[in-house]
Amino acid sequence: MSLRPQDVIRRKRDREKLSRDEIASFVRGAVDGTWADYQSSALLMAVFLNGMTDDERHHLTEEMLHSGEVLDFSDISKPKVDKHSTGGVGDKTSLILAPLAAACGVCVPMISGRGLGHTGGTLDKLEAIPGFRVQLSLEEFRRLLERIGFAMIGQTGELAPADKKIYALRDATSTVEAIPLIVASIMSKKLAAGLDALVLDVKTGTGAFMREEERARELAQALVATGNSCGVRTEALITDMNQPLGRAVGNALETKECIEILRGEVTEETRPVLELSVELAARMVALAGTETSLESARSAVLRALSSGAALELFRRNVEEQGGDVKVCDDPTRLLPLTLRSVKVESPQEGFVTGVDAAEVGRAVAIMGGGRTHMADRIDPAVGYLTRARIGEKVSRGDELGTLCFHDERLGRMAAEIIRAGYEISEKPPAELPTLIKEVITA
Amino acid sequence: MSLRPQDVIRRKRDREKLSRDEIASFVRGAVDGTWADYQSSALLMAVFLNGMTDDERHHLTEEMLHSGEVLDFSDISKPKVDKHSTGGVGDKTSLILAPLAAACGVCVPMISGRGLGHTGGTLDKLEAIPGFRVQLSLEEFRRLLERIGFAMIGQTGELAPADKKIYALRDATSTVEAIPLIVASIMSKKLAAGLDALVLDVKTGTGAFMREEERARELAQALVATGNSCGVRTEALITDMNQPLGRAVGNALETKECIEILRGEVTEETRPVLELSVELAARMVALAGTETSLESARSAVLRALSSGAALELFRRNVEEQGGDVKVCDDPTRLLPLTLRSVKVESPQEGFVTGVDAAEVGRAVAIMGGGRTHMADRIDPAVGYLTRARIGEKVSRGDELGTLCFHDERLGRMAAEIIRAGYEISEKPPAELPTLIKEVITA
Repeated sequence: MSLRPQDVIRRKRDREKLSRDEIASFVRGAVDGTWADYQSSALLMAVFLNGMTDDERHHLTEEMLHSGEVLDFSDISKPKVDKHSTGGVGDKTSLILAPLAAACGVCVPMISGRGLGHTGGTLDKLEAIPGFRVQLSLEEFRRLLERIGFAMIGQTGELAPADKKIYALRDATSTVEAIPLIVASIMSKKLAAGLDALVLDVKTGTGAFMREEERARELAQALVATGNSCGVRTEALITDMNQPLGRAVGNALETKECIEILRGEVTEETRPVLELSVELAARMVALAGTETSLESARSAVLRALSSGAALELFRRNVEEQGGDVKVCDDPTRLLPLTLRSVKVESPQEGFVTGVDAAEVGRAVAIMGGGRTHMADRIDPAVGYLTRARIGEKVSRGDELGTLCFHDERLGRMAAEIIRAGYEISEKPPAELPTLIKEVITA
Repeated sequence: MSLRPQDVIRRKRDREKLSRDEIASFVRGAVDGTWADYQSSALLMAVFLNGMTDDERHHLTEEMLHSGEVLDFSDISKPKVDKHSTGGVGDKTSLILAPLAAACGVCVPMISGRGLGHTGGTLDKLEAIPGFRVQLSLEEFRRLLERIGFAMIGQTGELAPADKKIYALRDATSTVEAIPLIVASIMSKKLAAGLDALVLDVKTGTGAFMREEERARELAQALVATGNSCGVRTEALITDMNQPLGRAVGNALETKECIEILRGEVTEETRPVLELSVELAARMVALAGTETSLESARSAVLRALSSGAALELFRRNVEEQGGDVKVCDDPTRLLPLTLRSVKVESPQEGFVTGVDAAEVGRAVAIMGGGRTHMADRIDPAVGYLTRARIGEKVSRGDELGTLCFHDERLGRMAAEIIRAGYEISEKPPAELPTLIKEVITA
């Protein structure tokens, strides 16, 4: 059957449900050029405005997934399970939960991304470690998974190539924020790693892609439904992103925080990172079936932390991916950090009632710690260490946090942006943010 | 001010009103490439689904109009006035009303189109006359307007080039049938001829672009509002297209019918063509201000017909545009006609209660009389002569009409399509179609 692009576009334009064949025609056509880019983008806008049914979203995901190679780790006997976060500020759990989960006997084939805009990316954090290579071949990836149980690599052109093509069009045509398109993009890339189970961390709040909790819930439900309909056991947590997660924002600072947590060095400020990492890792282990209950999975994960087993796996991973393993013993000396820093001070007395986490992320990006365009180079050393959390009482001149920078002018700009991002009120906030707000299961 | 395409797209996507600058950025960008085609098409889909305000539609029309040359006939002292039809089957009034109006003292700089799909085009009808050239230079066009008062040429690349670019994108992305886009396309091309006044013939019914009268009215109102807001006195008639207009469908047959009407040879079957041509011409003359009332304009137009003045202008036009003037004296001998014909017979006794005029147009196109693609060549000779009109009583075997064809196989296919397009019922229709349904004025 030959499907004309304009007929498929017209049917979505007229709110009709597209068939699997029609969706396949679009996905294949977008990649092989039988759909012109202007036809693909017209369909994307029609999908943005008219939505998709669960079936259409499922078919879009499957077609994008099968636009490229799907990895087959069936020769590795452990269950394959991963985590995906929709992105936040200071969101560094991957570096902790991957070795935690691997230490509990699951295989974590983690294909990660880079930071863009105000959000950070796992690959950039790993590359703060001197020598660490994220561009492994698929053969190296497989070997690491066999030996260590986890590995963290960058997206390759062989996996879900349709997503790369379609995402570029969405980015240029303001059709990014459509739930079916977000779901198909996330899930096609993640499922291409040949997973048995997947845990999603859907962020909501001032530093999240989905600021409103209702929209985050809608996205989480669609992700969980699609994962399960594609045969992958999938759960989602909706978690708070109304302030940076943990203490550090910035690549080397975040990596340092992760290593310290894996070393058991947890402070009041970094405890939320540990808490969320443990919960995500426990759900990965439970969903994989390696532990029989969520409770026993939590215990197993905590044992992997306290025994040093997770740190040992992390150390072996750093070594295998070319990084300097001494970073695990002395992260402060071995990670690139700035020589200059300045306190961001509270302009008045009161309670911290809000933080614009996206502005914190943007301030770090301005200093060189993030990207506006994918081609931008990152300065791993710069960043921000948060001190005051929502609900805390501060006096005028008290430290809200500390900026680490190289360039005085950019540092001043960043301090100004961050200071303006804090809301200091006479009265304490009505309630403190709950880190884990909701669990969405199939 | 620099406007990013994705920001303009996002605002229309979110149902915000676009500014003149934003619309200008799109129109210029679509032509000069600063907007990628996939960005233009995403905006077109957003406009299709979210609509445009009167102001936005006005700005889109003006920006498309000024994307190219706007003709200036101010050295011709007569008022410049034209007619535009949204297209139909057997719709041949241009060839009659242009000389009628010109004979009444107005200047008719008519820039016409070609047929596509089931609708015919004025240029194809004129080219049925041996030697007739429609691709005149703008200098020749001007000279003819000065000498004769009217001329009929094809669209040139210099007028409203944005429309050509945007129309091609709309055609490929199923975004044709959006009223603001239709209005801007029609009006930018028409107003580029430097008009003082414009009369629109908006067709509705089985052979029209707008089948539903309500949609035709909506389009007519938008066209009239936009014409007037652009400084051109504009009126619209909503006219019936529930059966072919007049007797002939097919290029040479239609031209023959027009010449016969200009010669005063009017039959019962061709009277509606004369009636509509006179009304449109009279409104052109009245709107131009050449006559003080519509009544006196109608009288003047009828005098131009009965005196032979309009036929004489038509003859001079044929001569100046390179055609064989003898066609005006003996159209039957000089126009290309087919040697073969066959009657389409009524399969049963009853009353004609409906005709699918679009199917009649498509049947003629299949025989070679129309185009599926703009590059297709036309056979001017083939066509269909309607006999039975809506409301007529027919017996089984009575002639519904006669097909004129070259190729037996295509002729049989066309006869089948046309026969199936007639609705023959036991009872007469509740009411007969009214030719002129409504007048829309500013």
